Amino acid sequence: MTKLSPLQIERLKYQPKLPSSLQNGVNSLELVEGSATQSVRDQEQIQELFANTYGKPTVTFKSTSTSSTSDVKNVGVILSGGQAPGGHNVIAGLYDALKNANSANKLYGFLGGPSGIIEGKYIEFTDEYIDSYRNTGGFDIIGSGRTKLETEEQFKSSLEVCRKLNISAVVIIGGDDSNTNAALLAEWFVKNNTGIQVIGCPKTIDGDLKNEQIEISFGFDTATKTYAELIGNIERDANSAKKYWHFVKIMGRSASHVALEAALQTQPNITLISEEVEAKKMSLSSIIDYMSDIIARRAENGKNFGIAVIPEGLIEFIPEMGSMISNLNDIMASLESDSSFVNATSAEKFSIVESKLESENAKVYSSLPALIKEQLLADRDPHGNVQVSKIETEKLLIEMISAKLSEMKNAGKFSGKFSSQSHFFGYEGRCAFPSNFDADYCYSLGYNAFALINFGLTGYLSSVRNLTAPASDWIAGGVPLTMMMNMEKRHGEMKPVIQKALVRLDGPVFKQLQDNREDWAMNDRYLFSGAIQYFGPSSVADITTVTLQLERSKQLASV
Amino acid sequence: MTKLSPLQIERLKYQPKLPSSLQNGVNSLELVEGSATQSVRDQEQIQELFANTYGKPTVTFKSTSTSSTSDVKNVGVILSGGQAPGGHNVIAGLYDALKNANSANKLYGFLGGPSGIIEGKYIEFTDEYIDSYRNTGGFDIIGSGRTKLETEEQFKSSLEVCRKLNISAVVIIGGDDSNTNAALLAEWFVKNNTGIQVIGCPKTIDGDLKNEQIEISFGFDTATKTYAELIGNIERDANSAKKYWHFVKIMGRSASHVALEAALQTQPNITLISEEVEAKKMSLSSIIDYMSDIIARRAENGKNFGIAVIPEGLIEFIPEMGSMISNLNDIMASLESDSSFVNATSAEKFSIVESKLESENAKVYSSLPALIKEQLLADRDPHGNVQVSKIETEKLLIEMISAKLSEMKNAGKFSGKFSSQSHFFGYEGRCAFPSNFDADYCYSLGYNAFALINFGLTGYLSSVRNLTAPASDWIAGGVPLTMMMNMEKRHGEMKPVIQKALVRLDGPVFKQLQDNREDWAMNDRYLFSGAIQYFGPSSVADITTVTLQLERSKQLASV
Repeated sequence: MTKLSPLQIERLKYQPKLPSSLQNGVNSLELVEGSATQSVRDQEQIQELFANTYGKPTVTFKSTSTSSTSDVKNVGVILSGGQAPGGHNVIAGLYDALKNANSANKLYGFLGGPSGIIEGKYIEFTDEYIDSYRNTGGFDIIGSGRTKLETEEQFKSSLEVCRKLNISAVVIIGGDDSNTNAALLAEWFVKNNTGIQVIGCPKTIDGDLKNEQIEISFGFDTATKTYAELIGNIERDANSAKKYWHFVKIMGRSASHVALEAALQTQPNITLISEEVEAKKMSLSSIIDYMSDIIARRAENGKNFGIAVIPEGLIEFIPEMGSMISNLNDIMASLESDSSFVNATSAEKFSIVESKLESENAKVYSSLPALIKEQLLADRDPHGNVQVSKIETEKLLIEMISAKLSEMKNAGKFSGKFSSQSHFFGYEGRCAFPSNFDADYCYSLGYNAFALINFGLTGYLSSVRNLTAPASDWIAGGVPLTMMMNMEKRHGEMKPVIQKALVRLDGPVFKQLQDNREDWAMNDRYLFSGAIQYFGPSSVADITTVTLQLERSKQLASV
Repeated sequence: MTKLSPLQIERLKYQPKLPSSLQNGVNSLELVEGSATQSVRDQEQIQELFANTYGKPTVTFKSTSTSSTSDVKNVGVILSGGQAPGGHNVIAGLYDALKNANSANKLYGFLGGPSGIIEGKYIEFTDEYIDSYRNTGGFDIIGSGRTKLETEEQFKSSLEVCRKLNISAVVIIGGDDSNTNAALLAEWFVKNNTGIQVIGCPKTIDGDLKNEQIEISFGFDTATKTYAELIGNIERDANSAKKYWHFVKIMGRSASHVALEAALQTQPNITLISEEVEAKKMSLSSIIDYMSDIIARRAENGKNFGIAVIPEGLIEFIPEMGSMISNLNDIMASLESDSSFVNATSAEKFSIVESKLESENAKVYSSLPALIKEQLLADRDPHGNVQVSKIETEKLLIEMISAKLSEMKNAGKFSGKFSSQSHFFGYEGRCAFPSNFDADYCYSLGYNAFALINFGLTGYLSSVRNLTAPASDWIAGGVPLTMMMNMEKRHGEMKPVIQKALVRLDGPVFKQLQDNREDWAMNDRYLFSGAIQYFGPSSVADITTVTLQLERSKQLASV
């Protein structure tokens, strides 16, 4: 018997809320078709690539008073990519809907991500098994993986496995890339007359899988609340001890939604947003100047402390760093097999690298602290690229700001103290117990995914909208995956992909930061959101993110 | 108007629970004296140093049906040392008791720690001010500081400030050192016939201020639950992704109570305890062997992931590291003013240091990774000592284990993968919203502190016991500070100090770890405690720590 924590025991009992349209079960549903759709861009190419699944209408569900019966259906489900709180509830919702439709239905879970369907590794879910994972965090129910499901060979293996298990639908829970692959698989299954459907579910803590049809991906709510809890606690510590500047790096390599949301929940003194750095072509030294200026001005007010929030992917968005890293990736390809380089001391390596880089890039590299120079050379990924997530950007900034402040001190422009602490939060939030919002949203996404399957749809993303309203008013339905696609260059080739949503500098969320930035920099407007609450007053336990609230308000206002 | 988070708004309304003896207010109390006390050791010396305050009896309170009146009293309060969740509630409890006794009473808060009373920096508390801090984390209500209140001159300044404000009692909220100083101040005030009383309150997240009379210091409950939340989330992540070993360093320099408690709440694969390392005289290489062996055995079972919990202070408890650091402190004193050393490259510095260290110590130093060698030389504290908290012990272990596993791989004894992530948790937990336990305990400690003052006591620590029972059954009273003292060497001189409680290797808490260690190492017994809950089922919202439960069970069993 596995020992469970008190919270685990209580959360297993939580009954997630469903949209009212789904509350009578999947056999009492009517499908309402919207109008035919188009991809966001590159319509001709996308249509050509998805000849069988392109242009389908969006759909929503309405509850009916009559009840139909469903044929027996076996479904397989895959967790793809990085963990996000609520994945277990997607599967629980899917399972409940499937058993509600026909108790003879079976749900199979493919193990370890997309490789599970390719290699035929799976389990069959039972009530007992599902019940022990309800409302819990993590993807450990069946594991996840990063295999990309995209080749003809993989599709064929998948088909064989599905045939063996008599599976007629596959649900892929993943981010933008995994759902792009879900669309490819759906198309391939139709083209080859397999009769197997594919439905996607929008997962990612990064919050970058969203668009007109998807208000937010699941996991963003819980992860950002967890990071906000920690940042708030550190703010309170900084404001009590009044002796440290805390530099907090937050997970999110491409988009800065997570850092932005965490900042809006906690109101730190400094928040950097990668998209802004890129748009304004801010150099590393201009970022250092910006931060040093705030530190110096706070010091003038007697405040030698503060909080800076930094998105994980920042470094790649700084133009000269991006250029240097790309140049470095090229030259390292040959240097890594050069034994005289491999066996050189760090100092020797630095000068070899500097001699090989283009002159502007060499200057940038040589200006960096030794720790960062080392990290840029170490731990390369399988493609020979710098692993940006391993670069301690927070320490890079601290070292460079420290040097800048010393200069300013010598010039009589800084008379404070600068002591720092650095933090990186990512793994802490990806597997938290899903918030009530994520628990409900994920359960609804999974339940709804089976409703889409039951109506014979394929190449659709499970969609639950109107998310700032109470769950009963949520709108359940589906969106053709091709609708969210455009053509982008990947590894030198143009590919159909779901557009990644970056932080919009003209959007209401970034504006909230921008309007308050100077006030938050100088005054201490710290907000302490505290630990996620699963019980208690609805004002605490059922809130969503600031991002969702602001974006929905704007959407609703524009209707 | 300050913007508040939803949780802040709700927590301000929470009414902390009091022991039933205190529920009728401080004017309806009877003092029950226990027998006279002795210091834990060195009785003669302690008695000599505390001629006026030594040997007093322990006391408890009983509620009476009659109500007396209280003279007007002004009280001052100080927050001393590192933050611990619940400090604000100690002050709120003290304030409520003081106003309950006589609404003309005043409570002053000294600003920025003990320096506030020395320099006469203070505020007077009002209802409105107190109300905005109830049940919140942090020490920002009046700030804290690390000034040691111990010299005759400081005592005189403090007296002057108290006289000016007509203060007749001072409450010092602090750890073992601060309470040692509270005892010195209490004695000095009596010896000099000032009529000013001093009462201490047991604060520290480290959990090392505890003994026969003090079941636990406040803040330990909330801080360890916060760290356990994060470790549990990371465990779930590791167990989902199955690709990283996470090395988690946990705050706590001297004692490992925090790491031990966090481990018991989460059941990680590896837990190091500094006290055990010291007692068993474990060398760094034997620690590396122990950890590498578990990593290799898990890899044999196909598990290339896991969690290791490491106490912050570990490095000083490893005999050869302690010896090397102490030697290094000596030689650095002269090297730091030597410009040829200061301007040398890192590699040059390393060889200079190695040439000056005693031979065994030089070997140890030279065996360390460059990053750690650098950290040992940088950032020295005002006394010229290595700042152990800045040494990234988690990375030291990772680097050395990585090297060890490579060796084992070459010898055919390891065939797995070792990818790692490191974390350090400390600041994340010191200022969290106090758990219900800490909110109640702290409020009771503060309320009780005023009851002690009202009965004219001085040199006592506010004591609330029987803490695993419901709050109404808690036993409120006081313990003479001298009772917890012994003589110890500090900066070369014998000083009276409150004994620090280290993890007892023969105690029930460590035994719990020891009995399960091998099972937790190989099997995945991860426990996910989740975020602290302030609302909901009592089984979740009102639990205490495993440490307190086990120690109380043993105490109760031995009665």
